This record gives sequence, C-alpha cells and structure tokens, in this order.
Amino acid sequence: MTPYATPPLLVAFCGSDHGPWRMTGMHAVRGEPLPPAERVWIGEGREIVAPADSRWTLRGTTSHIRYTNGDELGALQRRQAGLGRPQARRAALIPISKSAEWWAMPQDARRQVFEETSQHIAIGLDYLPAVARRLHHGRDLGETFDFLTWFEFAAEDEPAFDAMLERLRATREWDYVTRECDIRLERA
Amino acid sequence: MTPYATPPLLVAFCGSDHGPWRMTGMHAVRGEPLPPAERVWIGEGREIVAPADSRWTLRGTTSHIRYTNGDELGALQRRQAGLGRPQARRAALIPISKSAEWWAMPQDARRQVFEETSQHIAIGLDYLPAVARRLHHGRDLGETFDFLTWFEFAAEDEPAFDAMLERLRATREWDYVTRECDIRLERA
Repeated sequence: MTPYATPPLLVAFCGSDHGPWRMTGMHAVRGEPLPPAERVWIGEGREIVAPADSRWTLRGTTSHIRYTNGDELGALQRRQAGLGRPQARRAALIPISKSAEWWAMPQDARRQVFEETSQHIAIGLDYLPAVARRLHHGRDLGETFDFLTWFEFAAEDEPAFDAMLERLRATREWDYVTRECDIRLERA
Repeated sequence: MTPYATPPLLVAFCGSDHGPWRMTGMHAVRGEPLPPAERVWIGEGREIVAPADSRWTLRGTTSHIRYTNGDELGALQRRQAGLGRPQARRAALIPISKSAEWWAMPQDARRQVFEETSQHIAIGLDYLPAVARRLHHGRDLGETFDFLTWFEFAAEDEPAFDAMLERLRATREWDYVTRECDIRLERA
C-alpha cells in the first residue's frame, strides 16, 4: 500500500440507511455528536452522488504526508496493511478538528507536538498490521472536520484498537483537538 | 498580515474579458501555456460564480504553512506586506505543478530540498516588503495546478521580482516542477 504516491482521492462518508457498514455505536468524545444513522455509505472520487437519505456527509481527501520523516515512512510501509482485508469486519470512522492555535503554529512546532512530544507515529506503529488506516483531510476543502480517519480491524483486535485510542487521547497533541466523534461499525 | 491563522480561503482566478487586472503577458516556463485572455478576474469564497466568458478558471485555497519553521515565520511576519497596496499596480499569477516524485517524498526530504538546499524562504525574504504574495493550494482540490502564487509589486520593483524568479528557478526544488506558467498583469 503506497497511498501517498497516488493523486489525492476525494472520499465521502455518509450517514444513511444504506451502505456496507452498519453503525454499532457513536461516542462524542469532544464537542457535538453527529445525528444517528443506521449505516455508513462510502463514495470515492470527485463525481460522488451521496445517497438521497443521508443524514450527514463528511468529505475529505487523501493527500501527501505532512509530518512523517523518511525513517518513519519506511517503518510504516514495512508493517502496514491495506484496507479491505476479509477478516477486518470491524471499522471505526473518527472525525476530528483541531484548534485555530494548532493551525497557526509553524511546521516545526506542530511536528514537535505531533511526534517528538506525543509520539503519534510511534504509538500507531505498535498496532500494525492489525489496524489498517486511511487518513482524509477536510480542512482545505472547507469541511466541518479537519480530519477523517478510517480504521479497519478484526473483531478480536478491537480491544487493542481501543487501547491505541486511549494512548493517543492522553497525549499533548490531543490538547489541540476541539471536536472528535468515534463511530464504530461492522460489515453489514 | 497573519494569513495563516485564518481559516482556509478558496480563491478562483479566471481568464476572462472582465476583471480588475489586465494581462500584459504570459510565458509558459515549463509545459503547456494557458489559453490567452484579456483580463484576470479574482473571486474569493466557496460560493464563487466565475464570469460566464471565462476561458479558464484556476482554483486554490490558502492554508496553514507547510515547511516554514518558527524563526522563519517570525522573519517573514516582520517584513512582509499585505495585498492591495495602492502603489502595487503590477501583479503576477504563477501556477505551478510538481512531480509525483516530489509528492511521494516524506516531509523531511521535501523540507531538505525546499529550504536547506534551495533556500526558498531565504530567497523570498530578500524581496520583502517590495513583493507581496499569497499562496494557494490546488492539489488536494483536484485542480490541474498544485500551487497558484499571486504576487503584487510596484512597477519599479518588477526587475527585482524577475531576479527573484530567476534565482528560484535555478534551485534544485525546481527540478521537481513539471509545469509552470508566468502570467503578468497590471491594474486596469
């Protein structure tokens, strides 16, 4: 999986009565929750037509990497799994926004918080290849959420996934998170 | 001027018969030129309606800073001027795209080429406050051009602006530029 060498892919996640993922829970970790929905429908590409019954549509684009250095990228690429594995019947969609203070920081200050202090990449590496992930950026699209991260894992790895989130949410990076929803899903 | 602390602003540049900037020249530095036009019209915001006669519309969004560190940001903020100065009656719009190789590089490798090797920020600082600029990102929007940079300067500073471009285009960073147009304008 080399997601970063490919052109940006626009992805829409829709809370709907339709779609291949059944919502099993939603937790508003910080800020407002999203309206409930039975299913999540996912569309890729710029000509997406969301299901007419969608309660909400969240859009984001894959992009080039923003903080990861060469050594870290090598470690990630050696260990990470792609989306769509047959055994990965559980998923999570975690939309996040960060504060104006975060976005006003220069690159070195954001990197300092992201990895040198909070070890975001290092924590994530501990859960590879069990947890596959794809990051989508919404901020420059004018979306409500700055980031949409999509995770896929097997049912038996959900406790490990929860442990990963607990570690990440305890970091200094999360002081800059202003809104976070944690949506859990299983293949319908 | 603190452009980086504000939310992303979507901007459209249209080659049209209308608009406040008259095109005085266009040079295809690398790759295909754009179709000629009399004027450039500029619209800001997500509800932009481009002039019906537009030959082309280029879109990009202001965003957070991608490479600049804290010391560099301080130096830029102390010296840079804003857009719209009465004496700045000349402008340039320079759309650029970079190669797939550039976009696949990890953050530290891009920063190495951008500043440690090519001194992109340091070169730009030499021309402040004479040359005001605003950078717009198009890649994650699915646009043809990865970057649209808008520059404003007084007529007597255009030779210095040309010298700046010559220095930038001689750097290793420009080895990754796959397409570049240089559009010159004056207030109509």
